[in-house]
Amino acid sequence: MTTTPFLLLDRSRVEANIARLSTRLRALGVPLRPHLKTAKSIDVAHLLFDGGTGPVTVSTLREAEVFGAAGFTDILYAVGIAPGKLDRVRDLHDRGIRVTVLLDSVEQASAVASAGIPALLEIDCDGHRGGLLRGDPTIHRIAETLGANFAGILTHAGESYHASSPAELIAAAEHERFTAVAVAQDLRDAGLACPVVSVGATPTAHFAQDLTGVTEVRAGNFVFFDLFMAGLGVCSQDDLALSVVTTVIGHRPDRGWILTDAGWMATSRDRSTAKQSIDQCYGVVTTLDGRPLPDLLMTAASQEHGILSLRPGSSAALPNLPIGTRLRILPNHACATAAQHEGYQVGEAFWPRIHGW
Amino acid sequence: MTTTPFLLLDRSRVEANIARLSTRLRALGVPLRPHLKTAKSIDVAHLLFDGGTGPVTVSTLREAEVFGAAGFTDILYAVGIAPGKLDRVRDLHDRGIRVTVLLDSVEQASAVASAGIPALLEIDCDGHRGGLLRGDPTIHRIAETLGANFAGILTHAGESYHASSPAELIAAAEHERFTAVAVAQDLRDAGLACPVVSVGATPTAHFAQDLTGVTEVRAGNFVFFDLFMAGLGVCSQDDLALSVVTTVIGHRPDRGWILTDAGWMATSRDRSTAKQSIDQCYGVVTTLDGRPLPDLLMTAASQEHGILSLRPGSSAALPNLPIGTRLRILPNHACATAAQHEGYQVGEAFWPRIHGW
Repeated sequence: MTTTPFLLLDRSRVEANIARLSTRLRALGVPLRPHLKTAKSIDVAHLLFDGGTGPVTVSTLREAEVFGAAGFTDILYAVGIAPGKLDRVRDLHDRGIRVTVLLDSVEQASAVASAGIPALLEIDCDGHRGGLLRGDPTIHRIAETLGANFAGILTHAGESYHASSPAELIAAAEHERFTAVAVAQDLRDAGLACPVVSVGATPTAHFAQDLTGVTEVRAGNFVFFDLFMAGLGVCSQDDLALSVVTTVIGHRPDRGWILTDAGWMATSRDRSTAKQSIDQCYGVVTTLDGRPLPDLLMTAASQEHGILSLRPGSSAALPNLPIGTRLRILPNHACATAAQHEGYQVGEAFWPRIHGW
Repeated sequence: MTTTPFLLLDRSRVEANIARLSTRLRALGVPLRPHLKTAKSIDVAHLLFDGGTGPVTVSTLREAEVFGAAGFTDILYAVGIAPGKLDRVRDLHDRGIRVTVLLDSVEQASAVASAGIPALLEIDCDGHRGGLLRGDPTIHRIAETLGANFAGILTHAGESYHASSPAELIAAAEHERFTAVAVAQDLRDAGLACPVVSVGATPTAHFAQDLTGVTEVRAGNFVFFDLFMAGLGVCSQDDLALSVVTTVIGHRPDRGWILTDAGWMATSRDRSTAKQSIDQCYGVVTTLDGRPLPDLLMTAASQEHGILSLRPGSSAALPNLPIGTRLRILPNHACATAAQHEGYQVGEAFWPRIHGW
């Protein structure tokens, strides 16, 4: 039996999460370019394409190299390109792996054009990261600088992670779409081709009502989902495919604590739900077969110790969980929790993860 | 040239940090049993013993297996033992690697005694994790249950991480020592041998004025130190041996932001300094050669993007850092930041890290 802590992945939930979004986007007439930064797994990537391959998004060149070698030859590297990384991108192209890069400055555009690598221009639709604002004259200068290497534009609705209602999620999705399509139209009006109009984030991909003018949707977290996405209303807690399996190693009845062998090394330090209306601390605790234990949370963590206790104000009784009992912790943020592990336990199989840059 | 982000380790600072604590403990007459959970590196472990081996502490059985195979045969596994892990411990003993485990219940003691594995009993000196309180009659029951496998006691001054002055650190160290020695004496008064009296934490190891009655000191973080330890007054910022090297990938002058390619995947989500008097956000930013850039902090992070901006209230000017500029981020918590990486760049060498459990 695998030693705790380890990552448990529920394959049927992953498949259901993929089917749900695929069906949704098919109805809206736009293909998915899934972001593999959450799973970083060739096995999960194959589930996204019915066992085959397709267009994908990655967050590191290491991912591009590993997925490229596995047959995923249409790759968007969706982090602003540093000129010092172009050699590795060039090497991938030479091996038949078409990597498109991202940028938002004339300097980057000059370097990328010299290297003969296709690029998307990042547009900022809501002020959460990089990108240029609609109307910035630099947009046209970059497109002209890239010339034949200008592949189109990309935006990301970072604001959607702060929405507090379905109406706000719908509005964030429409704002993301509208901004991207408007910038593409501005470019076309100026006589510049803009073939790709790429939008997406897990929340907006699930709430967009219309994607007219969009050519692809990116989303990554949805394959696993997490407590943050459940708190945002994008999924239910029953959709969560990923959990950390841990073992009870002690009790402190004087303090109302149950101690486990999953600390922050196993869950990560991510506390994304702390800013939501329901703070889930380091995670919701369930039995090994997935039934939530009423009001029991992982409330504190050191490197290899977790402390479970009742949600503040709870009138539930602390459950009787003897030493050796196995439990599951549902994570705040699947991308961060998964990154703490070498791979996923999926039934009897082990699916490795990609690490490093 | 290594692609950013990556971990840079300053070997001379590691050696100086080791020399400082070794000299200190030699003067106090107590040997160090370094905790390898921070570095998780055979190369760093050898620096702790002048190129050789010696008694060590680990946080996972994987560490015990790897360090054991590298010749470290006296190992303390300082996380409460789950009975399901005893087979792996037994396998290590069969290969000549003496692993001592930790426990605080009669149930664990029975299982450990049956397996014939030596154990320390965890004592709680200040209410921060597991362990029994001095005077708890279970202490003697556990020692009796372990019989010949009872190796002694261990305590850890978790409270020292919350100290706000050198006087409080000195008091925490003395309280840790006093509690451990008193429990050992209680056991001896009852006719039970208690050979090992193990104390330690990086803060108390550096502030203990007297260690009479203690047989070993554990500390791990001190090999690298970090902004949290500097904020606590245990080291200066110039002692920090570990940093994340990153590259500037964009600018948002409208927001006062410089964007980099080191997000939380490279730094971890650890924000330990948030509770100290000076919050360093995700880290202090320096030039590639280590000079701090006035008031520049990594203030926000997504998975593979960092945002640098001035400390709130600063009157400094945002420095001019062109795209492609390499910088360093000093971490909040070295144990967490190091865990995000496959290893350390040390000059031209690469020192791998141990991952998993």
